[in-house]
Amino acid sequence: MTSASPNTQLDRIHAYWQASNYLCAGMLYLRDNALLRRPLHADHIKRRILGHWGTCPGQSFTLTHLNRLIVEHDLNLMYVCGPGHGAAAVLAHAYLEGHYSERYPECSQDEAGMLRLFQKFSAPGGVGSHCSPHTPGSIHEGGELGYSLSHAFGAAFDNPDLIVAAMIGDGEAETGALAASWHSSKFLNPARDGAVLPILHLNGYKIANPAILARIPHAELLALFEGYGYRPIFVEGSDAPAMHRKMARALDQCVADIHGIQARARASGPKTRPCWPMIVLRTPKGWTGPQRVHGHAVEDSWRAHQIPVSDPAGRADELHVLAEWLSSYGPEKLFDAAGRLIPELRALAPAGHRRISANPHANGGNLRRALELPDIAGHQIAVPQPGVHTAQATQVLGEYLRDVMRMNLDRFRVFGPDETASNRLSAIYDASGKTWMAQLLDSDADGGNLSPTGRVMEILSEQTLEGWLEGYVLTGRHGLLSTYEAFAHVIDSMFNQHAKWLDKAKHLVDWRTPVPSLNLLITSLVWRQDHNGFSHQDPGFLDVVANKSPDVVRIYLPPDTNCLLSVTDHCLRSVDYVNVIVADKQPHLTYLNGPDAMRHCQAGIGVWEWASTFVPHEPDVVIACAGDIPTQEALAAVAMLKQMFSGLKIRFVNVVDLFTLIPDQQHPHGLSDDAFDRLFTLDKPVIFNFHAYPALIHKLCYRRRNHANFHVHGYREQGDVNTPFELAILNGIDRYSLAMDVLKRVPRLRTCSAAHMQTLLALQAQALAQARAEGIDSDDIVNWQWPAAGPLRH
Amino acid sequence: MTSASPNTQLDRIHAYWQASNYLCAGMLYLRDNALLRRPLHADHIKRRILGHWGTCPGQSFTLTHLNRLIVEHDLNLMYVCGPGHGAAAVLAHAYLEGHYSERYPECSQDEAGMLRLFQKFSAPGGVGSHCSPHTPGSIHEGGELGYSLSHAFGAAFDNPDLIVAAMIGDGEAETGALAASWHSSKFLNPARDGAVLPILHLNGYKIANPAILARIPHAELLALFEGYGYRPIFVEGSDAPAMHRKMARALDQCVADIHGIQARARASGPKTRPCWPMIVLRTPKGWTGPQRVHGHAVEDSWRAHQIPVSDPAGRADELHVLAEWLSSYGPEKLFDAAGRLIPELRALAPAGHRRISANPHANGGNLRRALELPDIAGHQIAVPQPGVHTAQATQVLGEYLRDVMRMNLDRFRVFGPDETASNRLSAIYDASGKTWMAQLLDSDADGGNLSPTGRVMEILSEQTLEGWLEGYVLTGRHGLLSTYEAFAHVIDSMFNQHAKWLDKAKHLVDWRTPVPSLNLLITSLVWRQDHNGFSHQDPGFLDVVANKSPDVVRIYLPPDTNCLLSVTDHCLRSVDYVNVIVADKQPHLTYLNGPDAMRHCQAGIGVWEWASTFVPHEPDVVIACAGDIPTQEALAAVAMLKQMFSGLKIRFVNVVDLFTLIPDQQHPHGLSDDAFDRLFTLDKPVIFNFHAYPALIHKLCYRRRNHANFHVHGYREQGDVNTPFELAILNGIDRYSLAMDVLKRVPRLRTCSAAHMQTLLALQAQALAQARAEGIDSDDIVNWQWPAAGPLRH
Repeated sequence: MTSASPNTQLDRIHAYWQASNYLCAGMLYLRDNALLRRPLHADHIKRRILGHWGTCPGQSFTLTHLNRLIVEHDLNLMYVCGPGHGAAAVLAHAYLEGHYSERYPECSQDEAGMLRLFQKFSAPGGVGSHCSPHTPGSIHEGGELGYSLSHAFGAAFDNPDLIVAAMIGDGEAETGALAASWHSSKFLNPARDGAVLPILHLNGYKIANPAILARIPHAELLALFEGYGYRPIFVEGSDAPAMHRKMARALDQCVADIHGIQARARASGPKTRPCWPMIVLRTPKGWTGPQRVHGHAVEDSWRAHQIPVSDPAGRADELHVLAEWLSSYGPEKLFDAAGRLIPELRALAPAGHRRISANPHANGGNLRRALELPDIAGHQIAVPQPGVHTAQATQVLGEYLRDVMRMNLDRFRVFGPDETASNRLSAIYDASGKTWMAQLLDSDADGGNLSPTGRVMEILSEQTLEGWLEGYVLTGRHGLLSTYEAFAHVIDSMFNQHAKWLDKAKHLVDWRTPVPSLNLLITSLVWRQDHNGFSHQDPGFLDVVANKSPDVVRIYLPPDTNCLLSVTDHCLRSVDYVNVIVADKQPHLTYLNGPDAMRHCQAGIGVWEWASTFVPHEPDVVIACAGDIPTQEALAAVAMLKQMFSGLKIRFVNVVDLFTLIPDQQHPHGLSDDAFDRLFTLDKPVIFNFHAYPALIHKLCYRRRNHANFHVHGYREQGDVNTPFELAILNGIDRYSLAMDVLKRVPRLRTCSAAHMQTLLALQAQALAQARAEGIDSDDIVNWQWPAAGPLRH
Repeated sequence: MTSASPNTQLDRIHAYWQASNYLCAGMLYLRDNALLRRPLHADHIKRRILGHWGTCPGQSFTLTHLNRLIVEHDLNLMYVCGPGHGAAAVLAHAYLEGHYSERYPECSQDEAGMLRLFQKFSAPGGVGSHCSPHTPGSIHEGGELGYSLSHAFGAAFDNPDLIVAAMIGDGEAETGALAASWHSSKFLNPARDGAVLPILHLNGYKIANPAILARIPHAELLALFEGYGYRPIFVEGSDAPAMHRKMARALDQCVADIHGIQARARASGPKTRPCWPMIVLRTPKGWTGPQRVHGHAVEDSWRAHQIPVSDPAGRADELHVLAEWLSSYGPEKLFDAAGRLIPELRALAPAGHRRISANPHANGGNLRRALELPDIAGHQIAVPQPGVHTAQATQVLGEYLRDVMRMNLDRFRVFGPDETASNRLSAIYDASGKTWMAQLLDSDADGGNLSPTGRVMEILSEQTLEGWLEGYVLTGRHGLLSTYEAFAHVIDSMFNQHAKWLDKAKHLVDWRTPVPSLNLLITSLVWRQDHNGFSHQDPGFLDVVANKSPDVVRIYLPPDTNCLLSVTDHCLRSVDYVNVIVADKQPHLTYLNGPDAMRHCQAGIGVWEWASTFVPHEPDVVIACAGDIPTQEALAAVAMLKQMFSGLKIRFVNVVDLFTLIPDQQHPHGLSDDAFDRLFTLDKPVIFNFHAYPALIHKLCYRRRNHANFHVHGYREQGDVNTPFELAILNGIDRYSLAMDVLKRVPRLRTCSAAHMQTLLALQAQALAQARAEGIDSDDIVNWQWPAAGPLRH
């Protein structure tokens, strides 16, 4: 390997690795003299040295060997870079493969282009030190740790020819999300899905601490991964020639195992869950870098995490160490006169779409095929009169999703944390059972709905599910995740990162094409947490969502069944959003027939004339609402007010698309100020009954002209084990509280309202007492009947 | 065991278990005829049957056996109930132990009291089906799953005599938080800490699915827990007599192992990490309940999860099944004529504080001893002039925390995800290293700061850390967790649940005493995420916090070093809050000397006269700010405006305590409207520079009289790999943007401002170009010097 020109294949592999290590180090340090053609000088060093060396050599080593594997076996292989701040190695390989220059022509395949790559790395206006939408070949935002393995599995589902190599950092491995996601193998069907090859990188250290998995005995490490259901192959050491041989052997073994597992499963169906191979790669942190600096160990230490030599521009001894280190890779032998990788090494990398950096699945929009969708008319329910009949919206949705599933058995999955049935979506099982590769018992035949070929994914880990779904949509497929509202917060941070990915991919990366939206159905809502109580009452996920870029998030609160269908149909057609749909799973009143629901949802907001008492001119009060249960209570309030004050002019506004409330300059769905004022008036009181925390409405509307007259009712963190009705009263979203607020706010009612206020208080107390005495989920009290005369029109 | 009176100890144990199973079933079903003294009739059945039977028998079984263990070994033992909706079993035992009646006298030790227990279970106005602050003996909110094991470890730290039995549901075990927390054993020192005894309950099924861990081969299960570092003892079966013997043997073995480990470690110091025992308890879900109902298996099936017999009031055949089931426990033999547990069984339970339900650690406020705190005057830095010198606030805080640590080596810990040093708190290591029970290498002596006796807890799992800290404070001790701002969202849901726990404990449970506050230091802030870029830019944790009850949350944004000290000192003295402190780790300007900082922080908000140009009367504009970096930019804007418009009357307001902004009716820290108006005027423009998403300020202030004139600058989700200065400009929180906003908003400047606006734009462009050209974290540009003349006073 020290010969002038690399002769054997392992020599060439070693040289390729050296080239990539050189680029990584160059990215950290150099702003000039990219190929060390002149003696290294302080002026060649970046003013501010930022980046992370520690993880690079191990990742480069792996990527180099994966290249060999791809070429030798003609593999369709993706790479997910899990270790924190691991982008340098991935960028180096994308550059060596030529694909980076195709995407970013200024970083051409010559010395000047290489220098530009160095300069833009971890520099303002450039690219970060972890993988991002900018990174060719990546579907994984590497800024936050823990999601590499679930992303890898998400990519592998329904891609039978794909192998996803998931490099997992030993720091990342300590996170909850990662620790749970090892069990994903119980949901991967080798007959239908691709393979995931986990490569745990025991780099030894995190930022400032040893990694736990690097400090447990070999026997425990082996047992842990056998316990997770894998067959770990250990590749450990620091002697490069020996390590190359070990890694090559290990990867050959993995491919043979994977192909064997797949062949057996595809020949005769998956009989049992296979034991998938994985690699435990133990290499020194900062391998091949400086061993010691100023008397402290750097290689194989946490000191190699970021910058091994911190001030080479300022200290001659450090400059010397850096020059020695960079020279040790022999860039003059690796790159030709123009600065391009020498042909013998270029030949090592796969070509075209086989290049890891150019794998088509990593730009999933290109592979996206729109869903075939059933006509929702076939699922809409009859609503002859508003507010008379009830329906269970998510149950009807389940039937619609069943048909979506049937029509898209190659590219649609439904995800849920053991709650698909609890959320009333179980009609889906008629089209496809639940994926299950773990043990099956005879008793499962009785309603278990479990099958290796199932397409409903249920594991009690919101993080794993969200990671799967992200990986699935980023590789161009479609899905929907339903989850209990309060526990959507478990994936707050994952949502944030996915939204940020979409935002950057849309606006900064022209070669990324639109991917299917990620659809979240938030159900088991705050207002129906009877026996679950306070811990299950948290509608705050919407506040997290509303903080993200308006270009990538949507929030829908369909008021009834047909609206839920309409909204979901829309979301399943959309791209590049996170769509959040809020709909309760209990039976609720229905208001809109199919066509009306579609019109209403398309507008996103509108006056319900049939519920209003006075449409054409200025009303006395606007009663507005968003959310199924708040809508019901708002309508009930109107019904009472109509009886009390026959002349009261009420306009009733329902909001489905929450972002219609923001000014149009701030969100593409936002109403213009004029349109907003036409709905909400310039000066009349607006009593707004909202599903979630009331401040969110103020946050959206505070710039509106009539905002000072908005009085928002919503969840105020007042709850316990209550009947739904009592919970509504405690938080002031019940019909009586709303009606009383109208009495307070409408000037001409103030004089005549004392008696009515007493009446309402008495009615509220009576209803509450009745609900308490019944001690039940008093639907009879909560659900209100529209007066038999039907809607009033004026 | 079928004899009239239980003779052997195992007979008595069995009978005790039957009594507890009976109570669990009674809680689900009965609203009358508590002891089946009359034939069961439909009228005796609850109108709405809510609850979860599946987990009860296994938990009751365990609790019964733990009682035997406590008595036999005189153990100080706590129980953490992890399985979802597991409260019935815990309540049953608390009732059998008599402690429940002491806390809730209406549930007396007789038939009437038992009936009241039944009636209030899972009923409106009563108690929920999972553990909550209401539950005696619990520190664990059981509504959301995943935190039982980390809570248990948190309780065990620094409690050398305590054993915490953590019952872990096999559903819960699938969550990320739980999967990561098994590694907690690498942080438990047997010489100093108590023991955690994990009992994994392989109940077989979740809501509607098998549990993964129940469907992997024995060899994998064994390997998994050996890999996690435990020695699992399997107790498996459904034959009660055999199971009693196995469980008793297993628990004896566990106690012997634990005591052996502790004795060895305490005699000679912990030499190596011990292999702790754990139990894998595999019992049928809904054990002892109905086997089949309507032809479907119920026992040992997901159908046993909630209500095995769903309509006994409506169907005679179901009533019969229920009657048979309830009778099978023989309540007439278990309870005496008055309805009290018979004396032979009462004698089985431990007495007094040894009762699990009465363990003192589970009401940690009673054990709380306030921290000894150093005089912060000794840590305050000199600030001879505002805005001249810089300091690294978290580094100074680290020195303060070092002294706190030294003075409280028995009851204070600091937590952080591998970021304590990165967050500049490393002075703490002078007082105490990092807890580390995994392998130590010789090289760790060089700066590793690792030690079995360390008190700084670092694992790369925010969830595990938060769980430890929650367990630690709920058992009466003190701590602080520092974390990167963007990734605080990983624990959003845990924060929510802890805040909800505190709220209920304070307001609904009179016997719970105040526990130390949970302190979160949010650092590595959005405004200093140079190379990390967009993924690290998310200040939205504050929005999650602001949704919670004002009685239990506090948010502080100290503008400089001395303020950070003052705020932290205050937080460490407080009880029953979650305190969130936001402070960047980079060097920043300092403004207030020690006494001024203390006064300012105590007020929480105030005018900085030295930065204002006009104090006594109405100003032309109020410039307000909250957060260290926004404060710096706001001050720089004032400096520029002063130069441009010598007569401009600026009032400068700094906000430390964010909740001063809410009306006093809504938060105890809220300013009265009058006080607010005195600061912010009734009608003058307020340019507010805020650390986080701007809408949060509107959310807090929308009811204020002058709100329409609030113009809030903050993070607008505009970021990439930028210099801090460019990031500030992109989001409009920089000095130039603020000054330009002042020009736009102050009426008398509008006429004369066109030229100045051009000047500011040019200055902004020039500064930006300079920052870009430098390509560095241009502190020289960002940090501004107060004019040498010093603060202007009028």
